[in-house]
Amino acid sequence: MLGSGVMAGKIDLTDAYELVDRDGRSVRDELERIGYRGEMRCEPRPMRAYLELHIEQGPLLEEAGIELGIVEGIVGISWTRITLEGIQDHAGPTPMRSRRDALLTAADIVRAVREIPRTVSRNMVGTVGALTTFPNIPNAIPGHVTMSVDLRDPRAENVERALELLDEAVQAAADREGTVATVEHYWRVPPTPFDPAVVHACERAANALGASYMRMHSGAGHDAQYMAAICPTAMIFVPSTQGRSHCEEEFTAMESVEMGANALLLAAAELAGEHELG
Amino acid sequence: MLGSGVMAGKIDLTDAYELVDRDGRSVRDELERIGYRGEMRCEPRPMRAYLELHIEQGPLLEEAGIELGIVEGIVGISWTRITLEGIQDHAGPTPMRSRRDALLTAADIVRAVREIPRTVSRNMVGTVGALTTFPNIPNAIPGHVTMSVDLRDPRAENVERALELLDEAVQAAADREGTVATVEHYWRVPPTPFDPAVVHACERAANALGASYMRMHSGAGHDAQYMAAICPTAMIFVPSTQGRSHCEEEFTAMESVEMGANALLLAAAELAGEHELG
Repeated sequence: MLGSGVMAGKIDLTDAYELVDRDGRSVRDELERIGYRGEMRCEPRPMRAYLELHIEQGPLLEEAGIELGIVEGIVGISWTRITLEGIQDHAGPTPMRSRRDALLTAADIVRAVREIPRTVSRNMVGTVGALTTFPNIPNAIPGHVTMSVDLRDPRAENVERALELLDEAVQAAADREGTVATVEHYWRVPPTPFDPAVVHACERAANALGASYMRMHSGAGHDAQYMAAICPTAMIFVPSTQGRSHCEEEFTAMESVEMGANALLLAAAELAGEHELG
Repeated sequence: MLGSGVMAGKIDLTDAYELVDRDGRSVRDELERIGYRGEMRCEPRPMRAYLELHIEQGPLLEEAGIELGIVEGIVGISWTRITLEGIQDHAGPTPMRSRRDALLTAADIVRAVREIPRTVSRNMVGTVGALTTFPNIPNAIPGHVTMSVDLRDPRAENVERALELLDEAVQAAADREGTVATVEHYWRVPPTPFDPAVVHACERAANALGASYMRMHSGAGHDAQYMAAICPTAMIFVPSTQGRSHCEEEFTAMESVEMGANALLLAAAELAGEHELG
């Protein structure tokens, strides 16, 4: 999302150029090396619409046996970092009743993050993806744990409500064990609604193809998220086998790819005024 | 416990010499460098008794306001490695109901390890000290977790019972989430009972000093654990402030150290036949 981020003014051009990979190679140098550092400035300009075709990266289309997803917007995302301080002690001589085990508190928070979406909204997801334990050896009670919480929902007020429930659950878990929790809600992306007219053009394209489709939200970020800030935007999804993505199992059948490409073509042609859909 | 392990024949002398630290320095070379690689063979020989004075490393003596611990034996220890395989997926587009989150299963096991000692024995302890999550990034559902379980009790049958309960809890947690658990009970040390006559000599020494004392088990391993295999053995504990050990907060008051040293002296003198205690 680096190019769209710079074009939409969300990422500074110099910052983008100076990003380096693990081997220290910069974006600027690599663009020059492959001949992709062009002359045209990467900045907003008059655009009729932005359309993006993508695999769903989730299982909903495949499960429902539906050919296309017409994407109405991208969910809001909130990232939280939780630091837990217990007391590191020897696993042998420390009785159960004396323990302040940071990993026990973390386990209760993992369980709470599973429960929160259930009470807030059927579209919400909540994930503890990262969890690191110190000193991380079998015979020491963990004195320190850091963990991440990722919460997403199409509605900003649902994300707010989930964060309140998370704060309460963290405090309750820490109080039960006598540990100290520090909670940082350090990154937030509000929900990105797409342009109703462009969404509607995608829907008409699906109808013109005789494709089955459903309206849905994207749970992942895409270039369309930045582009929606500077021009009318929508997305089309095709099914992902078992919802898998960013792994070797990622797969979308060629007929699904073709259906998606045809929907993209028809919607783009209509938006460009080249073709009228019913 | 390297020296006692070699003397008791539990650790091979060559293996001990060839151990290296993080910088690659071997035990053999370092012993030679500091002049501690002596001529006498490190092997069992006729010994009247082995006595060891140590800080408790737990809070029991301090909490009870008691001056000395007369140690009757060392608990049995069991180490288990659990590997959990879920499905790594994107944290955004994967609905809650479709997830097979290895960290959810791990959290349920952490909670079970806290509960098991309660149902088995008041002297039992159970600890998840190590837990590692993959890929360990905020926006991926953990597909893989490894974790350790340390269980200890003075009675071997209690450790057995706890391991049965652990196996059941792991299977139940994995079934709930649809993950696959592999459980390896890879290391076991049976309980080490000390010699009743040597324990009694320590008790008489405490009485002779007018010290308050309690009989107890050691939850941690000590040289005495290996030495008990080759000669009559017991230990004396002095209080640890807040039970802390192997950290900067470790502290035992000088009067406690003195009381422990005097008890050790009197017990050793009696066992050597130099002094008769009442």
